[in-house]
Parts: sequence; structure tokens; C-alpha cells
Amino acid sequence: MNLPELRVAVVGLGLMGGSLAAALRERAVCGEVWGVARRQSTLHKAMERGFIDGGTVDLAAGVRDAQMIVLATPVRTILTLIRELGMLLSPGTILLDLGSTKARIVEAMEGLPPEIQCIGGHPMCGKERSGIEAADAKLYEGAPFVLVPLERTTEATKEIAQELVSAVGARPLVLDAHRHDRLVAAISHLPYVLSIALMSTAMEAAEKDTLLWDLAAAGFRDTSRVAASDVDMMLDILMTNSEPILALLNGLEGRLAELRRDLERGRESELRQRLHRARTKRSEMFR
Amino acid sequence: MNLPELRVAVVGLGLMGGSLAAALRERAVCGEVWGVARRQSTLHKAMERGFIDGGTVDLAAGVRDAQMIVLATPVRTILTLIRELGMLLSPGTILLDLGSTKARIVEAMEGLPPEIQCIGGHPMCGKERSGIEAADAKLYEGAPFVLVPLERTTEATKEIAQELVSAVGARPLVLDAHRHDRLVAAISHLPYVLSIALMSTAMEAAEKDTLLWDLAAAGFRDTSRVAASDVDMMLDILMTNSEPILALLNGLEGRLAELRRDLERGRESELRQRLHRARTKRSEMFR
Repeated sequence: MNLPELRVAVVGLGLMGGSLAAALRERAVCGEVWGVARRQSTLHKAMERGFIDGGTVDLAAGVRDAQMIVLATPVRTILTLIRELGMLLSPGTILLDLGSTKARIVEAMEGLPPEIQCIGGHPMCGKERSGIEAADAKLYEGAPFVLVPLERTTEATKEIAQELVSAVGARPLVLDAHRHDRLVAAISHLPYVLSIALMSTAMEAAEKDTLLWDLAAAGFRDTSRVAASDVDMMLDILMTNSEPILALLNGLEGRLAELRRDLERGRESELRQRLHRARTKRSEMFR
Repeated sequence: MNLPELRVAVVGLGLMGGSLAAALRERAVCGEVWGVARRQSTLHKAMERGFIDGGTVDLAAGVRDAQMIVLATPVRTILTLIRELGMLLSPGTILLDLGSTKARIVEAMEGLPPEIQCIGGHPMCGKERSGIEAADAKLYEGAPFVLVPLERTTEATKEIAQELVSAVGARPLVLDAHRHDRLVAAISHLPYVLSIALMSTAMEAAEKDTLLWDLAAAGFRDTSRVAASDVDMMLDILMTNSEPILALLNGLEGRLAELRRDLERGRESELRQRLHRARTKRSEMFR
């Protein structure tokens, strides 16, 4: 198989799928890009913006003549789609997904007929806004794009997936599903849970004094930003990656309790050390 | 007293004091701006950039001929300066501070001779970077600037303080010290403690897998941003406002425990409600 000749069907034309379709067409990565969406209006927008060569709301029709399928929906919709696709895909079809957690998805892929070539994927990029309106052909540029091959994934499939990832400007990074899930639990899911807890605490405080929202400044805006993420997407992430998230939450509750105790007891030098260590690492990571 | 004729002495020429001096001079708000700094090199920079008419490293000399003093150092240095100024200020001098917590500062001001006109202040603006290098005459533009009068503060002093605040482009907001401290505990100090706990948890996870830092993306960057704040400044804030912070930490630990239990027990509809409520409020607050 030769990527520049393939018809790629992107299922789900939100921020991630819409942006991928846009990048594939703009950079002439593959032969044709087809879109599958739930709503006709989404397909219209994708056609208008030149993201797809054609599209349909019918999954079976959308994947029939495609040699490569990319699933770009929330995680649990991907799990459902994988089950449905078992009956629909011809032998040799390549199936890639863009789901934010990988263990459950790769497990579902293992259940597909062996003639279907599967590989998990997770592009580490995004935006505050979601939906095709926010889609952007440049979204993937410079982003790490994790690829999770199955045991049975052939070298040829891995190569085509890596070629596609590089062609849209991202950096392919091959990882094991569980390792991926533990890492994203720490860098993405835990910050989300924290920002939700922060918002809830501030909402409780604001019940007593509504001036709170007028004073909330840049620091609060940054720390609470990910609480504005799409709820369906995040709920799927939490429900399919609860084990690593719970392990980290446990650690975080420990760290918070230490900070609280230092503060209660006025243990200034311990507190200074904790603040200093965190600041040093943060400043080293991001400039 | 007439603000356009006063000599204002700014004690501390870091981000906040340097920016205030710069704005006072650029907008010709007062007669003269003097700077007091610990280091001669800071005074040189302030002179070079045109932030001050003159400056000194000697507190007594710096405040001697000033009719208005602005203290712009970390909170506990302000507390020390207030004690020292009791011996140095002439009757009728106006004393304003820019400290991030107010109850302890206003309490210290109450101990000054009654002829000194005191008023607490807290401009709600800032930047990630600190020091005179980051100072900017536009820093105060549009920011809420909390003013905390003492019982004995005269109307004339309040008016001069409000005039100064408006003249640098900020919005004066008169508040009681304890109310101010409770509000900033929720919108600023709690997010800081959380971001420290997040960094500590991520650092622990990264000990097992250093790839973590390479994958950390925008969401992590935002949620951890305030962990990069100046440690001396934040330690002073935590140590002088521990009571309201501890009350909020207690609430936050409760919210986190609820989220953890929902996740442990797979209570999806409860979880969805919590995420949805937080998202709705966050989206309403910041667009």
C-alpha cells in the first residue's frame, strides 16, 4: 500500500478529525479524504472549507471504499465504532484512531478479525474550543503523536501510520498502551480533575461573596482553564483510564495534605523547600 | 494635599513598584517619583529606563522629603518597613502599600503614630516574570486595585489614593481587609497551592518515567503556570493568610475526595453533573 494513493476515511469531523482531514488534503498526503459525521451540517462545513473530497452520515458507506480509516471521536464512541467496523471492513484495511486513552481501545482492536490492520494513535495537541469550527490544518504541527501498535500490527502498517503522522507535521512516538495511559493521566487527566475541584471550591466560596468572580485574575484563569474542556470527551477519558488517574489522585491528596500540615504548623523552611523544588522544575520545563 | 505636586517615594522597585513608578512618571501623575531599592544596580536600571527622578538605597533618606510613600515589597518586608517608618515619617505623610495580603498589614499600620495617614492597597495584576526587568508602565491598566482604609483614614487620604489608582489606569475598589484576604485566598492562593501539589505529583511520576516532561502539553502548562511564581513573595502570602487558605484547602480536599469516590465507583451521572457545572461556570466567566 502506498499512502499517496489511499482513500482515507475520517470518522468524526470535530476539532481533531476536522483538523486531520484539513491537513491531509492541504498537504496532499493521500489520494482522497472522506468524512463521516453524525450531522449533515458538519459535512457541509467540511466540504465548504475544503477539508474533504466527499462525505456521508452513513458509516458503512463512508468506510466501504477506503483503504485507511481514522476514528476521531470521544473514546467510548471509538470503542462502539470498532465493534461495528468488524462487519464492515475489507481485509487489509488499516484502522487508526485518535482517542485520548489507549489501553481499552487497543484491547477492542485485538478483537477485530486478524485481516484488519490496526494501530492505536493519540496526537498530543488540542485547543480550548471544540468542533469543526475550531478545526485547523496546522493543529498537528510539531505535536508529539503517540502510536500504539498491536502485537499483530505489521511493519508496513506501522510505516504507513508514521508516514501519515509526519506528513501532517507531527512527531511519531511509539509507545505501549499502558505506559501512554499512565503518562497522560499525570500530564492531562490529573490537571483536569484538579481544575474541576478548584472551580467547585471557588463556586462554593462565591455563594458567600459574588465579588469573587470580578476579582479572579490571570492566575485563576490559567489554573482553571482545562475545566472548560468538552464534558463528553473528558468523561470518556476518566471512565476509560480511572486506574492510573486514581493512583495519581492518591499521590496528589498526599502532597496537598503535606502542604496543608506545613501551613497549619507554620513550618516555613519545609514549605519553602517544597515551593522552591516545584518552581525550579516548572521554570526548567517551560520558559 | 494635591497629588500633582507631591513627591512619591516607591520602596521596592521590582515588578510592581517599578511598574508603578514608571506609570506615575509616564503619566505625570505626581510632582516627583523617588525610588528606594536594596541594590544600587536596581536604581541604575530604574534611572536608565526613566522610571524615577532619583533614588537611594537608604530608606531614611528616600522617604525624608516625600509626602507619599508606597511600599512595594513582599508582605513580610512591608511589615518590617512599617515598623521602621514609624520613626522616619513626618506628620501628615500618606502611606500606601501594594502587598498581596491585607489583614496583617493594616493591623501593623494601626500601630503607627496617628499623624501618619495610612491606607492598604492591592493591585490585582502581575506577570509570570518578576523584577525591574519585567516592569511595565502599562501593567496597571484595567486592573482592579483594592484599597483598604483604616478606621482613622481621612476622606482626603482616600481621595488621593483613589486618584493615584485611577491615574495609573487601574480601577479602585474599596474593601475590608478580611474580605479581601478571603477572596484572594480563593482566586489566587488556592490555585497556587494546587499547582505546587500538581508539580510535586508530576515530579514523583516522572521519577519512574522521564518521558513525562516531553509529553506535557498545553493543559499541563496552564494548570502548573502559577507554580513558577516567586517563592519569597508566595511564602509571605501563605504565612500571612494561612487561615482563609486552610479553610479553602479543607473544602478543596472534600471536592477532590468526591471526584475520587465517583471515579472509584464508576458513578458516571454524578461525575457528569460535577464536570458540567464547573465547565458551565468557567465558560461563563472567561471567554
